[in-house]
Amino acid sequence: MIIKPTLLIDKEKCLKNIEMMSKKAKRHNLIFRPHFKTHQSLEVGRWFKNFGVERITVSSLEMARYFSCEWSNITVAFPVNILEIETINELAEKISLNLLVESVGSAGFLSGHLKYRTGFFIKIDTGYHRTGISPANTELIDDILRVSGTSGKLDFKGFLTHAGNTYQCRTRVEISEVHDRSLGMITSVKSKYKDKFPDMIISVGDTPGCSVSENFEGVDEIRPGNFVFYDLMQLYNGSCSEDQIAVALACPVVAVHKERNEIVIYGGGVHFSKERIEIPSKGIIYGQVTEEKYGGWGKPVPGMIVKSLSQEHGIVSVPASLIQNYRIGDVIKILPVHSCMTVSSMKTTTKILISH
Amino acid sequence: MIIKPTLLIDKEKCLKNIEMMSKKAKRHNLIFRPHFKTHQSLEVGRWFKNFGVERITVSSLEMARYFSCEWSNITVAFPVNILEIETINELAEKISLNLLVESVGSAGFLSGHLKYRTGFFIKIDTGYHRTGISPANTELIDDILRVSGTSGKLDFKGFLTHAGNTYQCRTRVEISEVHDRSLGMITSVKSKYKDKFPDMIISVGDTPGCSVSENFEGVDEIRPGNFVFYDLMQLYNGSCSEDQIAVALACPVVAVHKERNEIVIYGGGVHFSKERIEIPSKGIIYGQVTEEKYGGWGKPVPGMIVKSLSQEHGIVSVPASLIQNYRIGDVIKILPVHSCMTVSSMKTTTKILISH
Repeated sequence: MIIKPTLLIDKEKCLKNIEMMSKKAKRHNLIFRPHFKTHQSLEVGRWFKNFGVERITVSSLEMARYFSCEWSNITVAFPVNILEIETINELAEKISLNLLVESVGSAGFLSGHLKYRTGFFIKIDTGYHRTGISPANTELIDDILRVSGTSGKLDFKGFLTHAGNTYQCRTRVEISEVHDRSLGMITSVKSKYKDKFPDMIISVGDTPGCSVSENFEGVDEIRPGNFVFYDLMQLYNGSCSEDQIAVALACPVVAVHKERNEIVIYGGGVHFSKERIEIPSKGIIYGQVTEEKYGGWGKPVPGMIVKSLSQEHGIVSVPASLIQNYRIGDVIKILPVHSCMTVSSMKTTTKILISH
Repeated sequence: MIIKPTLLIDKEKCLKNIEMMSKKAKRHNLIFRPHFKTHQSLEVGRWFKNFGVERITVSSLEMARYFSCEWSNITVAFPVNILEIETINELAEKISLNLLVESVGSAGFLSGHLKYRTGFFIKIDTGYHRTGISPANTELIDDILRVSGTSGKLDFKGFLTHAGNTYQCRTRVEISEVHDRSLGMITSVKSKYKDKFPDMIISVGDTPGCSVSENFEGVDEIRPGNFVFYDLMQLYNGSCSEDQIAVALACPVVAVHKERNEIVIYGGGVHFSKERIEIPSKGIIYGQVTEEKYGGWGKPVPGMIVKSLSQEHGIVSVPASLIQNYRIGDVIKILPVHSCMTVSSMKTTTKILISH
C-alpha cells in the first residue's frame, strides 16, 4: 500500500523502450552504450543485459564505482575531475574505464598521475555550448593528442559529443535538424583524424536525437539514457508517446480546495526535483496527473497539472468538472517533467517495480 | 581535502543566526519552535538546545520520526497525511505530537483512528493560498472543532499559518506589509475563539516575516526555519545580509572556456536542486560564487553567477577580467538560491562543519 511519495517504475514499458533502442542500434550497426545516470540502479541495469548490452555510460566517478561491481566497461561522460585521481586509478585497475578530456591541462595531469591504462574521448562541442572543444579548434585537439600520446597510459578512443540542444526543440523536425547538424560537425573532425587513428570511434548521445532520427551516418556509438523511462519533456518535444513514459510518482492527496479547483499533494521539490517546462497551452508545469488504472497508470488527465512545488507540497490544478472525484487519502500518479532528476531525488526511497 | 561537490556549513554563522532569532522570540515573549526541515540534521538541531529551544517543527512524519530520538515536542507543519496513521500513532505514543488539520474529513479520520492524545492546529490561509482555511470560513472551523471535540484524543492547540507569500517580496517593506496583513487575518480568527479556547495559541512561521518584522501583536509562537542558514533568496528579498548566509556548496572546476567567459563545475541540479530566482540586474540565477577565504568563504564575486544547471554540471559566468584566475582542479564556493532545497539534496553527502 502506498502511503507516501513513491516512485513507480513500469518494468514492461522499460523493457519495450530498451528493446526499441537496442534494435535501432543494431539496425544502424552502432555500439549501444546506454547512459545509466537516468536510473542509477543495478536492478534496472540488469534489464539491459538481456539485450546484449555490455558497455555503459555514467556521469560521475561515484556512479562508475557503484556500477563497477557488475559492469566492466564504463565511460564517464563528464569532463574529467582531476581531483578524483585516486578513484580513477582504483577503477582503472579493475575495469575498462573511459574518461572525457577537453583541455591540455587535464591531459597533462592524467599523463602524470595515471597508474593503469585508461581510455579517453575528446569532447567536441557541436552546438550545445555546455562543454567541449569547437570542431574547428584542431590546434587544441592536436595539443591534447600530443600530450596524451607521451603518457603511455592514455588510450585515445575517439571523439564524443552530447547534442543537449535537442532538449530545447519542440518538434521532431527541429530535433532531426539539430541532430544532423551535430553529426555533420563531429564527423568532420573524424575525417581529419581517421588516417592517424584508424580505430577511433564517434560517440553521440542525446535521447531526443537517438529517438527521432534514423540518420547515424559516420557514427559508431550511441549513449542515450533518458529513453529507458522517458518523461514529459520528451513527450512534448516529440521524442516519445504517452505510452512510453515508464515512471510516475505516486502522491497522497492531503487537501482539496474546491473553491479554487486545486488539490494539495504530499510530493514536492524534494521528490519531483524542481525541474519545470513551459508548454504554450499550459504555462509552466512540474508534472501531469494520470488517469487511474489498475497495476499502473493511465493517460494524462487533460488540464490536470502540477502548477507549483514547494519542499514537500505540490499544488495540482484540477478541472472544475473533476474536482469532486478527489478526496483526502487518495493516491494519484503523476508523470514527471524530467525523469533523470526525479529518479535521482527518489533514489533512497522505495520503488515499486510493476510487472503486468 | 574537497574533491567533489560538498556542502559547507559555517557553524559560527549558524550560531549567530540562532541567537538572533532566539533573542527576538524572547523579546516578544514568543514560543520559539524552529522549523528543522531546513537542516534535517540531529547535529545542527543540538545547536538550538543551547538557546533553550525545546519544541520544534518539521514538514513530514518521516522527519518527525528522525528527530523523535532527541526531541519530545514536535509539530508536523504539513496537512496531515491520513495514510500514515500508523506512524502518527507510533509517534504520539512517544512524544507530544501536533498535526495540522484543515478539513472535516481529516478531523473525522483522526477521531476514529488515533490511539493516543495528539495535538492539532487548524491551518489558516492568510494570503499564500497554498493550504489552509480562509479566516472568514468560521463554519468550516466550527465543524472541525465539533468533530475533533467528540474524539477524546484530539487536543485543539490553536491556529497556525505560514505566510509563504513573503517569499515573493523583493523588499523589507513589502515583507512587513505581507506579514502585518497575515497577522491581522489570523488574530481576527483568534478573537472569535479565545473565549471558548482560552489556552489556544497563534503560530506563525516564515523566515522573511520573522527576520524583518518587529510586530508580533497577538502572536504566541514563531516557526521560522530557513534563517539558520539563509540563502540568496533571503538576501535578495532583504531578510538577511551576505554575512549571515551560513551554507555554501564547494564545487570543483572541471573546464574553463575563456572564449565565452564560462567555467564548468562539477555541481548540478542533483546538488543545488534546480531552485532558481530571477534578479532584475542578473536574470535567472542558480547560485553565486564567493571570494576565496581561508576556513570558509568571502563575499559574492560581482557578476560571477551560476547561469545554468544540468544533472551534474553547472555553468558559471565569469567576468572577462577574472577568467584567467580559474583553473581546472580549483574548488569554488557557491551560495545556493534556496538552502532548504540544497541541504536536502546534499543530505546523504559529506558536510564539513567549520568552526573558526
